[in-house]
Amino acid sequence: MLLRNARIATMCDGPDYGLIEKGAVVIEGDRIAWVGPEADLPTTHDLQGENLKRRLITPALIDCHTHIVHGGDRAGEFEMRLGGASYEEVARTGGGIVSTVRATRTASEDDLLRSALRFADALIAEGVSVIEVKSGYGLDVETELKMLRVARRIEQVRPVRICTSFLGAHAVPQDMQGNPDMYIQQVCIPALRQAAAEGLVDAVDGFCEGIAFTPEQIEPVFQEAQRLGLPVKLHAEQLSQSGGTQLAARYGALSADHVEYADEADAEALARSGGTAVLLPGAFYTLHETQKPPVDAFRKHGVPMALATDCNPGSSPLSSLLLTMNMGCTLFGLTPAEALAGVTQNAARALGLSDCGQVAAGHRADLAIWNVGQPAELAYRIGFNPLHRRIFGGKE
Amino acid sequence: MLLRNARIATMCDGPDYGLIEKGAVVIEGDRIAWVGPEADLPTTHDLQGENLKRRLITPALIDCHTHIVHGGDRAGEFEMRLGGASYEEVARTGGGIVSTVRATRTASEDDLLRSALRFADALIAEGVSVIEVKSGYGLDVETELKMLRVARRIEQVRPVRICTSFLGAHAVPQDMQGNPDMYIQQVCIPALRQAAAEGLVDAVDGFCEGIAFTPEQIEPVFQEAQRLGLPVKLHAEQLSQSGGTQLAARYGALSADHVEYADEADAEALARSGGTAVLLPGAFYTLHETQKPPVDAFRKHGVPMALATDCNPGSSPLSSLLLTMNMGCTLFGLTPAEALAGVTQNAARALGLSDCGQVAAGHRADLAIWNVGQPAELAYRIGFNPLHRRIFGGKE
Ligand SMILES: [Zn+2]
Ligand SMILES: [Zn+2]
Repeated sequence: MLLRNARIATMCDGPDYGLIEKGAVVIEGDRIAWVGPEADLPTTHDLQGENLKRRLITPALIDCHTHIVHGGDRAGEFEMRLGGASYEEVARTGGGIVSTVRATRTASEDDLLRSALRFADALIAEGVSVIEVKSGYGLDVETELKMLRVARRIEQVRPVRICTSFLGAHAVPQDMQGNPDMYIQQVCIPALRQAAAEGLVDAVDGFCEGIAFTPEQIEPVFQEAQRLGLPVKLHAEQLSQSGGTQLAARYGALSADHVEYADEADAEALARSGGTAVLLPGAFYTLHETQKPPVDAFRKHGVPMALATDCNPGSSPLSSLLLTMNMGCTLFGLTPAEALAGVTQNAARALGLSDCGQVAAGHRADLAIWNVGQPAELAYRIGFNPLHRRIFGGKE
Repeated sequence: MLLRNARIATMCDGPDYGLIEKGAVVIEGDRIAWVGPEADLPTTHDLQGENLKRRLITPALIDCHTHIVHGGDRAGEFEMRLGGASYEEVARTGGGIVSTVRATRTASEDDLLRSALRFADALIAEGVSVIEVKSGYGLDVETELKMLRVARRIEQVRPVRICTSFLGAHAVPQDMQGNPDMYIQQVCIPALRQAAAEGLVDAVDGFCEGIAFTPEQIEPVFQEAQRLGLPVKLHAEQLSQSGGTQLAARYGALSADHVEYADEADAEALARSGGTAVLLPGAFYTLHETQKPPVDAFRKHGVPMALATDCNPGSSPLSSLLLTMNMGCTLFGLTPAEALAGVTQNAARALGLSDCGQVAAGHRADLAIWNVGQPAELAYRIGFNPLHRRIFGGKE
């Protein structure tokens, strides 16, 4: 397949888009065989190809942090809070993460899959080719595994690649309140072992925060991940500075996520360890947060920044990665080029993937083709999808 | 046509959704003939009908404030500003409203129509049946009329109803800088007369603000509207308190729009005059505003609140009315029921329309059918479109 007369944001080489004007891409099988200016196209290639009429080609997008597998929704809770109910009143009616855990435990695998596909389909319609999906609403062995099996099933029924993260250390379940260490030892780590044995885990995650787990409580989970040869990542510094980013960096984590309360020392630690900062503006927006992530420190120390939806029923019921790009610019001050890097090459890096996220020879042929004149339009518009079409593994 | 086994948010009677559980709607021609609980369905109606399986029916949505007809985009300016350029530097490269005026003047009617249809189509895909469209990027007689003609053409090529607003008093054009009164007398009012004579004007709007026109400068335009028998509305109190809402109320305006800086006296004036407050959270979000509209004062005095996208290339490149509902809740503290009222019956009221915006016998059969369990889900989700289908004038 030859795509020609396109503007290509390769996302290679340098700080900007790595733009090729009047470019061409040659696809062989599921790989990109050649990319460059059309004038340099090797003569061995069929010169017809498909004329994209100056449309923009980017790498297909990557959503590197989601919780799209979950039972129920929290629309009722959203309505109660806006009606003036206090957090206590919401909790008394069974709201909060507890309600999502309950709904996820009682849902069948088919129900969970059907629910997750709504969001997977919305992302795919925006040119997304890779979706990370976390467990963490089971908080018991059986349901954590059920969530990960559902995540794996998504790629059997949709043209998309799924990366799973085991997030047993998401919250302490109600029947172990006050005993986080007991939960980690008796439920979380056994669930991780079993899930890994079944091939359900691509990475191991945790929620390090005052309302969840301390770095000391997360550490045994990371040690188990090391023994299992699995990479780690962490929800860190979202609502307070709790030391999660430093822990993540010590374990060579793929990423530290949220990181609003990270400071320059955290940025330096991430830079040294090669970790990516995953920014999640949907939660910042929904929770009315005001503390922004230290974007300038990340820039200064060369920490790659990714952007993701954090799609979840409580703090970020957001399922548009294009809108996430706009929020990254409007709320956090990223440039449109940083926003696009954040959902392509830096998102790939946050998932440990080296075969996608750029339009480069040898990479998977996962491309998005857009009806826009310039790449900045992708982040500029709000609630608008200019996708012309998506190519996944060389196929439409 | 009979639609049955639906949950219906009629948006009639009382402060909430006017919900009917297990309801039915009978459509005859382009009108709603009957709505109520299925059990009360008159026996004269065919009892088969279509089983909607408990899906939610709402009135089709109404976007009562947009600028979707315009030339060019401002993505380059968005990128410059995020790259650190000052407003002055942006202006020096020809940015700001001046660039949109230039692009709109030079665009052909066909180009303007093609561009506007992108946004009209995005809105229609979210169940929108009525779109208000303003002029205001011409600032000369010819281009103001061209914009309104393009707005009218939208309803010839798409199943949607267009309400036009003449917004000649949007800005002072460059060649009359410092002479706003001259612009009003020599360009704006003659353009209004001619546009009205050609049947292109449904309402007359203005931008009352320190950076645009004073109430005294707007008033002759409103007087001309009165002579022509046209209703008025006003961009008022967006960036400062300038007296626009009081002026609007004195002229019995359909609506005062933006109104972040309105105070309780403004709310009382609007209540007395029967005007609607149109809230535009997309501009608030894009411009990083912090002053929220006086929602409590509007509630206290019974001022109807509408919500709209304000879709425009500069301060609100937002083309999702569902996202606008979420922003109304998240940024301004509206309840989900107020948000839905804001894009249905109160939006109809802001346009002076009495035949739409509710699911009520005698109204136009403009309906949206949603794959959601409860109406609050429409405002709760961010960047997600659960539309099952739209019915416009009784037709799919
Ligand atoms: Zn998360
Ligand atoms: Zn406006």
